[in-house]
Amino acid sequence: MNYRIIGYILGWVLILEALFMIPSCLVGLLYQESEITAFLLTIFICLLIGVPFAYKKPRNKVFYIREGFVTVAFSWIVMSIMGALPFLFSKTIPNVIDALFETVSGFTTTGASILPDVESLPKCILFWRSFTHWIGGMGVLVFLLSILPEVGGSHMNLMKAESPGPSVTRLVPKVKSTAKILYGIYMGMTVLQIILLLLGKMPLFDALTTTFGTAGTGGFGIKNDSIAGYSTYIQVVVTIFMILFGINFNVYFLLFIKRSKQAFKIEELWWYLAIIGCAILIITWNIRGLYGTIPEAFQQSAFQVASIITTTGFATTDFNIWPQASRTILVMLMFVGACAGSTGGGIKVSRFVILLKTVNKELHQFLHPKSVKKIKMDGKMVEHEVVRSTNVFMITYILIFSFSILLLAFDNHDLITNFTAVAATFNNIGPGLELVGPASNFSIFSGGAKLVLTFDMLAGRLEIFPLLLLFVKDTWKKF
Amino acid sequence: MNYRIIGYILGWVLILEALFMIPSCLVGLLYQESEITAFLLTIFICLLIGVPFAYKKPRNKVFYIREGFVTVAFSWIVMSIMGALPFLFSKTIPNVIDALFETVSGFTTTGASILPDVESLPKCILFWRSFTHWIGGMGVLVFLLSILPEVGGSHMNLMKAESPGPSVTRLVPKVKSTAKILYGIYMGMTVLQIILLLLGKMPLFDALTTTFGTAGTGGFGIKNDSIAGYSTYIQVVVTIFMILFGINFNVYFLLFIKRSKQAFKIEELWWYLAIIGCAILIITWNIRGLYGTIPEAFQQSAFQVASIITTTGFATTDFNIWPQASRTILVMLMFVGACAGSTGGGIKVSRFVILLKTVNKELHQFLHPKSVKKIKMDGKMVEHEVVRSTNVFMITYILIFSFSILLLAFDNHDLITNFTAVAATFNNIGPGLELVGPASNFSIFSGGAKLVLTFDMLAGRLEIFPLLLLFVKDTWKKF
Repeated sequence: MNYRIIGYILGWVLILEALFMIPSCLVGLLYQESEITAFLLTIFICLLIGVPFAYKKPRNKVFYIREGFVTVAFSWIVMSIMGALPFLFSKTIPNVIDALFETVSGFTTTGASILPDVESLPKCILFWRSFTHWIGGMGVLVFLLSILPEVGGSHMNLMKAESPGPSVTRLVPKVKSTAKILYGIYMGMTVLQIILLLLGKMPLFDALTTTFGTAGTGGFGIKNDSIAGYSTYIQVVVTIFMILFGINFNVYFLLFIKRSKQAFKIEELWWYLAIIGCAILIITWNIRGLYGTIPEAFQQSAFQVASIITTTGFATTDFNIWPQASRTILVMLMFVGACAGSTGGGIKVSRFVILLKTVNKELHQFLHPKSVKKIKMDGKMVEHEVVRSTNVFMITYILIFSFSILLLAFDNHDLITNFTAVAATFNNIGPGLELVGPASNFSIFSGGAKLVLTFDMLAGRLEIFPLLLLFVKDTWKKF
Repeated sequence: MNYRIIGYILGWVLILEALFMIPSCLVGLLYQESEITAFLLTIFICLLIGVPFAYKKPRNKVFYIREGFVTVAFSWIVMSIMGALPFLFSKTIPNVIDALFETVSGFTTTGASILPDVESLPKCILFWRSFTHWIGGMGVLVFLLSILPEVGGSHMNLMKAESPGPSVTRLVPKVKSTAKILYGIYMGMTVLQIILLLLGKMPLFDALTTTFGTAGTGGFGIKNDSIAGYSTYIQVVVTIFMILFGINFNVYFLLFIKRSKQAFKIEELWWYLAIIGCAILIITWNIRGLYGTIPEAFQQSAFQVASIITTTGFATTDFNIWPQASRTILVMLMFVGACAGSTGGGIKVSRFVILLKTVNKELHQFLHPKSVKKIKMDGKMVEHEVVRSTNVFMITYILIFSFSILLLAFDNHDLITNFTAVAATFNNIGPGLELVGPASNFSIFSGGAKLVLTFDMLAGRLEIFPLLLLFVKDTWKKF
């Protein structure tokens, strides 16, 4: 293991985190809040530890997939610990486990909260809480890659480990340029949403934090009723942008370089839109009795479907009280998740498409035992390696999922609460059903259960393996 | 598709079913019940249709895996339809869907019932209900193979399609002898259990029906309170035999031919026993407050764990009211299921062992990208083909599982009822939780939902693909 290079990157992550806290300081300054000292203290600690590590470029540039995974896992852990300090120092969340839960929930763009009353928080803390979504959405290491000169080795391994989806493709030959393009698109769409929200007469602070939550598909709100209190125009804008941020960013890149034909050939896009469309229609029909008019039911249905499938987790209504069919569909969407290569979580649409094609292939293999059928996607052959790793991902996913539910059960809450709590954290959504429904929060769980859910959030965001690898003895062996 | 040979085998299945109804006739005769005419009429119909088809051996002996799967699927459908007739003719279950549900539940050894009061049924009907478990446990086609002269082609394809587990091995070179040995062991253990139950002063009728339910890991009881009313001795005997019938029959065969060393090398056996042991201990500790003494809690825990993991579904207590941790463990055991090559259902222990090893292999692949690690089991290499098909099985399993829950949701029952109803039928267990808990039954569902669950029971027993293949257009193409 090349510890030196890992330390170097971790150092940079800390420096970046210090920089990312500056906007929160400005907000604190603007509103003249005393909590600003909590941020200044954290920035000082981050730099104190980070600078010495990042000071000197390591000479040994060996950087295999093992180093990539370990670096990503540690980066996210370190980021979360440091990110929790402002909550602790300002005593807005005095409990260590709670502060960690909230921060991990932010960075992993989950949006599950242990806070019963967010409106009482100082603005600078609220800003930081929402800003963690924006940072975590595209990934801090992807950001690092876009600014850091390549330190050698294959940086693709870093990006592979942090970016969601079964296969990560470089948009352009250089990793650095790919990272820059991704952040460019991300930034552009963020600015666009802020403008549209401001046009809807949303206050600037609300527009910024809501956009951060949408862009990262996070879901932390700054109001206790999430988005329910805002105008229909704002809710519609948020709905549309949630769906947009759940789309594979390759589509935007291809549109940007005017290869729209190739962009619309991406199968995942159509599956994603089709699933959203079907879900909205069925739920609209199912809940039509609960709302005054069909258009209102449609709007509520669309918002909630978009919020859940993109794993954002904003709410405009308490869907916990919807009929069972609608609840069941929402629970299923929790697992589907957004597109690969988006900021959304979940299992990802493309994985499901690959899995469906695998099943179809298997059925044909029974009929034609000697034929060798290959799985195709976007008109291209899917590599055997991708299919295999998708399968293994699903299996690992299920095992961790079940084990988490088992551990939670000892808190003696009902099965649906436990099941949806794990689903909502592991898929980085936010709210679940029953005791963790949109009108409730995660404070009901014991400390141990919160740690399990914190692990699930990280495992979900990093797609399991980087985190799991930390527990394998061989990872730490020299070879 | 070689329709002629499929018809031939289906003809034999009908004849066999007629023969299997004779014991029920004898019971009816003994208790002088009028429902005997329902059986005589059904036997007549079976023979009327079956004999012409089975009369002449087909000349075209082509019999590929496609024919094997289609034959098995049709055999089970035909068997179920004919098996439902006595319920309909005798008017004990006047509704067609209900009668089909109950019969499929019997043959697939599920044991889920739509009857609120079984004690009011005539003895001959009760006997038939339990006897379907015994027939379905080892499989009617395996029985057929053990008596029918080989009609050419690869009969292994029939056995592969009907026998549970990721890989079916011939115990001896000839399929016919393998089938005979399997039924021999099955018969021997059945007789042994009957004797032990009789020694516990159980009435003969109860001993027979209870044994059929245990041997097939079915779970239909002849009392409304299942096994709760019997003595502790009887409950212990049933517990032990449930566990025994959940063990891979290869173990018994190897013991029988005095190769105990090889028998105890079968990894699945140890995993199976370890899971049972852990589950019993945790649940005993978790429910100790509900029962008078630790030994009583242990006995209740052991019975329920054995009943669920072997997918039998007998009950001695209402585990629906147990604490959440115990309920959660039982729900998980529903999915684990028994050993491959046993009469039990579920996903099977060996599949989970293979899946765990796959995940382990994946983790090592990240660390040593160039090494090629093979998965080993029982000291032997597991073929790539088996690993792949295990993965695909799991994926298909999840897809059908989710889709079933979605369809059930339109009945507007709670999520746990729907989830465990599908789990209990798809894994061939019987009782679930909440509205389908051990103290309740499946009559709450609508006709449509019952058909979905009926499909799940068949799909679970035949391990999905034979049934799924019926819906693929290519299956019916000539080529």
